[in-house]
Formats: sequence, structure tokens, C-alpha cells
Amino acid sequence: MKLFLVLLILLVTAAESASIPHVRRFLGHFAGSRLRNNAGAALHAAQYETRYFRQRLDHFSFAELPDFNQRYLVGNTAGLWTPPAPIFFYCGNEGDIEWFSENTGFVWEIAPSFSALVVFAEHRYYGLSMPFGSKEEAYKDAKSLSYLTTEQAIADFATLITDLKRNMSAEDSPVVLFGGSYGGMLAAWMRLKYPHIAIGALASSAPILQFENISPPESFYDIVSSDFKRESMNCFDVIKNSWDVLEAQGKYGDGLISLSGKFRLCKDLNNTEQLSDWLDSAYSYLAMVDYPYASSFLMPLPAYPIKEVCKKIDGFPDGTDILDRVFAGVSIYYNYTGSVDCFDLEDDPHGMSGWDWQACTEMVMPMSSRKESSMFPPYEFDYPAFADECIQSYGVRPRPTWVTTEFGGHDISTVLKKFGSNIIFSNGLLDPWSGGGVLQNISHSIIALVTKLGAHHIDLRSSTADDPKWLVELRETEIKLIKGWINDYYQDKAFTAYSIFPLFI
Amino acid sequence: MKLFLVLLILLVTAAESASIPHVRRFLGHFAGSRLRNNAGAALHAAQYETRYFRQRLDHFSFAELPDFNQRYLVGNTAGLWTPPAPIFFYCGNEGDIEWFSENTGFVWEIAPSFSALVVFAEHRYYGLSMPFGSKEEAYKDAKSLSYLTTEQAIADFATLITDLKRNMSAEDSPVVLFGGSYGGMLAAWMRLKYPHIAIGALASSAPILQFENISPPESFYDIVSSDFKRESMNCFDVIKNSWDVLEAQGKYGDGLISLSGKFRLCKDLNNTEQLSDWLDSAYSYLAMVDYPYASSFLMPLPAYPIKEVCKKIDGFPDGTDILDRVFAGVSIYYNYTGSVDCFDLEDDPHGMSGWDWQACTEMVMPMSSRKESSMFPPYEFDYPAFADECIQSYGVRPRPTWVTTEFGGHDISTVLKKFGSNIIFSNGLLDPWSGGGVLQNISHSIIALVTKLGAHHIDLRSSTADDPKWLVELRETEIKLIKGWINDYYQDKAFTAYSIFPLFI
Repeated sequence: MKLFLVLLILLVTAAESASIPHVRRFLGHFAGSRLRNNAGAALHAAQYETRYFRQRLDHFSFAELPDFNQRYLVGNTAGLWTPPAPIFFYCGNEGDIEWFSENTGFVWEIAPSFSALVVFAEHRYYGLSMPFGSKEEAYKDAKSLSYLTTEQAIADFATLITDLKRNMSAEDSPVVLFGGSYGGMLAAWMRLKYPHIAIGALASSAPILQFENISPPESFYDIVSSDFKRESMNCFDVIKNSWDVLEAQGKYGDGLISLSGKFRLCKDLNNTEQLSDWLDSAYSYLAMVDYPYASSFLMPLPAYPIKEVCKKIDGFPDGTDILDRVFAGVSIYYNYTGSVDCFDLEDDPHGMSGWDWQACTEMVMPMSSRKESSMFPPYEFDYPAFADECIQSYGVRPRPTWVTTEFGGHDISTVLKKFGSNIIFSNGLLDPWSGGGVLQNISHSIIALVTKLGAHHIDLRSSTADDPKWLVELRETEIKLIKGWINDYYQDKAFTAYSIFPLFI
Repeated sequence: MKLFLVLLILLVTAAESASIPHVRRFLGHFAGSRLRNNAGAALHAAQYETRYFRQRLDHFSFAELPDFNQRYLVGNTAGLWTPPAPIFFYCGNEGDIEWFSENTGFVWEIAPSFSALVVFAEHRYYGLSMPFGSKEEAYKDAKSLSYLTTEQAIADFATLITDLKRNMSAEDSPVVLFGGSYGGMLAAWMRLKYPHIAIGALASSAPILQFENISPPESFYDIVSSDFKRESMNCFDVIKNSWDVLEAQGKYGDGLISLSGKFRLCKDLNNTEQLSDWLDSAYSYLAMVDYPYASSFLMPLPAYPIKEVCKKIDGFPDGTDILDRVFAGVSIYYNYTGSVDCFDLEDDPHGMSGWDWQACTEMVMPMSSRKESSMFPPYEFDYPAFADECIQSYGVRPRPTWVTTEFGGHDISTVLKKFGSNIIFSNGLLDPWSGGGVLQNISHSIIALVTKLGAHHIDLRSSTADDPKWLVELRETEIKLIKGWINDYYQDKAFTAYSIFPLFI
């Protein structure tokens, strides 16, 4: 999830201002974008219709507020769906829903064998689902952004599903939720909060425990670092040692100019932090998309991109400047196609993304970088400084304990051991977000599927000829579990015709 | 729950205006009030402290709104509580929390044997828990009332509990929710929505299925009617036949004046509907509080008050005017102490109660009166007319399907069969609200306790020397189940010292 990184960058990189050390924000645009990489964007587009649903802006009050149009994609793949066959519902993340549909081929691929209807619902305040008529108006200020919250987004989904089912006389169709990353968090939380609306949820790479002190705040950077160390100890050391060199060089009279030249930047640096942010993002994103085949989720990349980065870094003769190594390494991420003339560190200077707002309000995920195990500069999460920044930037005070009050998280095993059912938490251990995920079975129907070599929600991607065996098996297990939920449901409803429906794929 | 009746009266009684037939509102004050009957109000007051907690007005948005102070009562009964002993939390209903505390002796009585801390939390917009500084400001208009919703109230409870536990280093104390009537609905819904906050809920007389078409809309009046029929068929017939007589008499030139005299009203009637509302309320409230011992929950009443009413009605010699009989009957309800000089049908003319707002927004409970089985005038719930009234009165449009979208209700057995746990739904079949309750076990830990002779949340009342055996047993079963939840919790947390804690009473 590219936008998750906003927070990460915000938390780990060096300070812009001495008074608010180690807190930055409004970056996170180094993940690349759908707009750049939409060559394959039409892959599933032929399978769906785009529709809009009128939503209340505040589901939980009766304040007079304008409704808005929520975009959603509906596909009756292969025309097989008819009630009470299932509905597969993807919980849109913090971005354009077409992009998520594009990168969630799994749902499209398995739907026909379930005769399922597929719905991808866009998250409010993203893509074309803008309150107040336009992104400009929706993102104007704290007042207009007030209703960008997870509870409202999940209530949007609940309302949309209820209405869709009623309009299609599909009240008896079981709904299965899907989501990856933040979307996976929404799917899991929605299954817990709205069990009457969805019979189960596949929550892939959903760090629902990355709040307060539940997961160690160092896990993200530790995992990124160990992904590099795993490929090469030298690679890890080079990166770890590069930050000081970078900072030292930036301090020379013309250090920033010379760094700008070395890194082929379009505009000269104002400070070294701009550059370290850019490097930091590359490493973190690389860890998220360290897929076993070539892909272009965030950027066009080769298979096992970290291996390629480390090959570059390690491949120079002894005595090569450490920054030349590092530059060659991150060029795998930023310029794999070789088409970039110069790198623009401010390629989205006005991109006040919705995730920044969410990070400053509900999605407060503390992150630190541990001196010993991390290849990143050491940093300890400083909540007061973080809160100050949010107040200054948005005029909003974060509610750092609200997510756990509303959705839980503390002692989740005890709480859910006898409560809740039908949730799959899938995580790949290469994925830095897995540190905040549910990695152990909670009950016989709240299941953790953990793969050693998986990266960020790889299971939700389209299958490829290069899928390793563990990935094929992971998806098969997921399908089997989902099939079980659906069959249980039909059985409970005594839809015998459906409980023997051939749901195998 | 006296205020539930607002809706009921609003739905069943005859029309004030020809254009909006059979819809009325802003009544429901015939239930009597705490202020009149507060002789015993200090019964548990010595056991608690009154405190206030600062709450957000809108938990689900970041709109800039003033906080408000929520009142709550805390009692460490017998001084036995120390973490991780349990916390018993009463979910405040639509009224003054002291009154509910007073009428929920069960919680106070059993707390010491659990070494439990008792908390009674007031519902926002009721009692002294007023947003905007005063009842006048809070109830000013639709804008100020916007945040009077169940989801906000439950989130208040969740936030209060989380904060209390943190402040008292009681994070490990299990919380058990209690609630009766609307408070019982809140308790059940809260257990489902916030399983991480409370380990279980005793929801007494909670008609969570009285929405949309889940329960038959006729059940309330059918049950009231059969409570009367059960005592005497003649009594039932007299009441059933009285409405037409009443209406016919009101049509005479001085009919209203003569009726006003016959019923000893302080002010002459404007129409017969005022009187039929008043009678209707008496019968409905009598059914709710048809307790086996003298009580003064809504009004000072004898044991089995319906039996007494019917004795009066039946006790006249043949040929007695039907309205004289009816008047004698309802006098049991309105004037059992004999101290009333005249009856004031507008004794709370400005009592714009919060429940009216709730009934016009989320709590839309359709109710009809069936010609054959009901002793009330026939009436069919007319949603469009109801909605029009709400728009005219409050400028607010009801959301009649929101409760089931947010909290479920349709097909609740299938939904919760494998989801959720630790909820007791207790209902007495004399209680007209039992028709909208959960009357069958859903799973081995979502349990329905049904008593044939119970009235409205009788189990939550203080024990008395006159408690029948079934009531004693009902409470024992509840205690046993709650003890089981708590022991399970301690066991799961491996608090062995606590799992052998003597929780028997």
C-alpha cells in the first residue's frame, strides 16, 4: 500500500525543523502512481460496470450535510451470478478503486467458479468518491475532511451492500469481504462490526495491530532491514553506513549541489533529508513489493527486486564511493526502465493525500528505527511532536487510542477466541507490514495464514506463470476456507440446492 | 421503560389531523415520573459517587464540536473491588440515570459477591448529561439534537470504560454490561460491536427485533390485550368495546364536557383522542409493570395490577355504564394512592423528550393493532404518514432501515449462530415488549431466558420477599452465566488466582 508509507516516511526521516525533531509529513509520493504505470489498467475493466451510490456524509449523526456519490465497480463475471449466489466485495483502500481492482486479480479470477458477483467499492475521499463535489472542496480544510474516517467508510460499505442486495433481490446472497493493507484492515473490522452484512473476510497484509504499543514500533524497519540483510550482509551494511556519509557530504559548502548531481536530481537539494526520504522510501517500498516475479504495482520492477538492488550495490569494485553504490541500488526502484532523465523529489508537491489526514487523526501507527537491527537511521517515535505537527498542519488533534477503543487490538487473542468467526489474516513475512499483522490463529475460524516468502498482499494479485508453489497453495487454502464459509451459510439457511453447489475451482 | 411508550402512543392512537391519520407524537408522559415517586430514590445512592466524564459529541468525525459532560455513578460496593475484579456497567437508557440505578437493584445486590465495581452511565441528552451546556440548548432544534444517536451513546460507553480502566489500572478487569429495555438493546449491541470492551451482556426486555418487519408489528398490542384477557375475558371485552362508546359520546353537543366530568379531568377535553391516549397508555404501562408485588416503577401500584384493574371493571353490577367501568379500572393505574383530585392530561405539555427524537430518527419501531386479537382500536402502521410527521415536527427524516444496517436483526439466528458470544436476552412474556425480543437460544453462549409470568425487566429489579420462585431461579441462572463468563475470561488470561476466586453468591 503506497500510501501507508506516508506515515512511515513521516516518522523515520530526519527533521526539517529543529523544534520538531524526526517528524515529517505530506510526502509518500515516491511510490510511483497508477497514472505512470497504467499500461495494464484495462485488464479487468472489461469485466465491470462503473456505478455511483448516494451516501450520507455522516452515518452516525443527523447533522444536515450534503450527500456524496460513492463510486463502485460491479462485475458479474462470466454472467454466472444470480441470487443467492455469493457477492465478493472488495473494501476500497486509500486510493483510486480502479487501481485496486487492477491489482486484486485474485478476486476477479476466483469469482466465476463461485458464480459470484464482484463489487469493488471506492473509499470516500479517494478516487472519484469525493464529498462536496470535488477533491478541491473535499480537501479544503479540517472541516471538510472531518468525515474522512474508517468508521464512516465501513458504514458506507455496509449501506451500499444493504442497498445493492435489496435492489437485486439478493438478500440471501452471502457477502465475502476482501481487502489488502488498509483495505484488509477495513475488511477485518467490517466482519467484526457488521457480521450481519458479510459472512467472512479475507484480510491480506492488514496491520491491525500496528497501533499504540501492541506491536513493537520497530517491526516495520526491522523487517525492511532484514529483507536486505537476507540478500547480502554487505548490502545491508552499505545502506546502513550511507546515511552518515550523506549527511556529512551535505554539510560541505557545495555538498548539496554535488549530491544533487550524483543522484541526478532535477532540482538541487535544499537539505539532505529530502534525499534520505527518497532513499528511505525506495527501500521500504522495495520490501513491500519484493515479489518473486516482475511486477509494476508501485513501479515497474524485476522479480525479487531487493536481490537486484543488492547485486548492484555489491557489484562495484572495492573502494567505490558508498553513495555511488546506493544510487545504483535505488535506481532499480526509481528507474528500472532506464527512461528517467532526472529524478524529481517533489513530483507531487501539492499532493495533500487523504492518508496524511487519516494518519493525523485515527491511523496513528507509532514507528521507530532500532539502532542495532535497522539499516535506517535510529529514531524513536515521539508522539507529542507528532501531534504538534498534526495540529500545525491540519488544525486537528490526533486520537491515538481511538482505533483500539473502536476496533480493539489489545489482547486480541483472548477477546476473539470465543467471539467472531470467518476471518483470514494472510501475511507474508517479507512484507514490513507483517509486523503489525495477526500471525497466529485466534480460533478455528479466525485464521492466520503466514508465508515466509510473501510480500505485501501478494495473494490478492493475479496469478502468474511464475507463481511459486507456496503462493499457489496459499491461494488454494484461502479458496477452500471461503468455500467453507459459504457452504456453512447455505447449510444454516437450509439452501440445500446451494450447499451442494459446485464451488470448487 | 416508560419512554418506549412514547412511540407506542404515537402509533396506536387516533389521529389529531385528518391529513395524517393515526400518527401522533410528543406524548408518553402518562408513565408517571421519578419526580413524583422518589420516596425510595436514596436506596442505592449511598453506595455510589457521582462523577462526570468529558465526551466528544461526535466520535465518528473530526468536526469541531463542543465536548460535553457525561454523568456516571460509581460504586465500589462493600469496598471489595480491586483490579482485576470485574466491573459491572449499566448502559443508561433514555432518562435520568439515578432513576435507572434506583430501579436496577439486581446489579447493586449481586456486585459485592463478585467483588465488582458498579458503574451506571447516563445516556447522552438525558438527565444531566446534556451537550451544549443545558437541556434547553441541547433540545433546541434538529441541529443540536443531531448527535443523539445510539451509536454515539454506545461509543460514549466504550470511551468511558476504556478511560476508567486506564485510570484505575484496571485494564485486566472484565466488564459485564447490563441494561433493560432500550438500555438492554444498548447492552446487547455494545457486546456485539465492542467485544474487546465488555466480555458479556445481560440484556433484559430488549426488543432488538422490533424493527422493520422482523417481529410482527401487532405483537405489542396483542400482548397487552392478552394480559387483560388472561385475567378476565369480560375485562378485555369491556375495554375493547369502550373505544366506540367513548368516541360516540364525544360527538354529542356537550359530549366532551360530560366525558371530562366523568373522567375527573382538570381541563375539559378538546377531542376524544386525548382521552383514548390516556387510557391506552394506562393499559400499556400496566402490562409492562404487571409485577407480582407492589411496586412504584412508573406509578405506585399493587401487586398484579392488571388483576386489580379487571376486578374493578368486572366488579360493577350489570348495566353499569361501560365508561364508568373503564374509569374505575384506569384509576388503579393513575390514582392507586387515592390522592389525585383531578387528572391532568397535559401534565408535561412541554416535555419534548429525547425519545421522540430517537423514534423519529433511528428507533423506528412499526406498531399496529390487529382487529381480532387486540382490545385497542384497530390501526395499521403507516410509515409515510409517520415520516411526514417527523419532518414536520423536527425537520428530520427518519432512517427506518438504519438500525438493522448498523446492528443487524434480520435472520439473527443464522448470523449469530457462529458469531458473537456471552449475551443473555431475558424476557417475560407478560411484557408487551417481549414480542420484539430474542426468545430462543441462538448459540450455546447467546442465551434466551424466557419466563411466562415476567413483566418488563423484572429481573433487574431489587429482590423482594415476595419474589416468586421462577424469578429467584431466573436471577440465579443469570448469575451463574455471568460467573461463567468471568471465570472463562480469567482462565483465558491465565489469572489462576482469579479463576478460583469465590464468585458464588
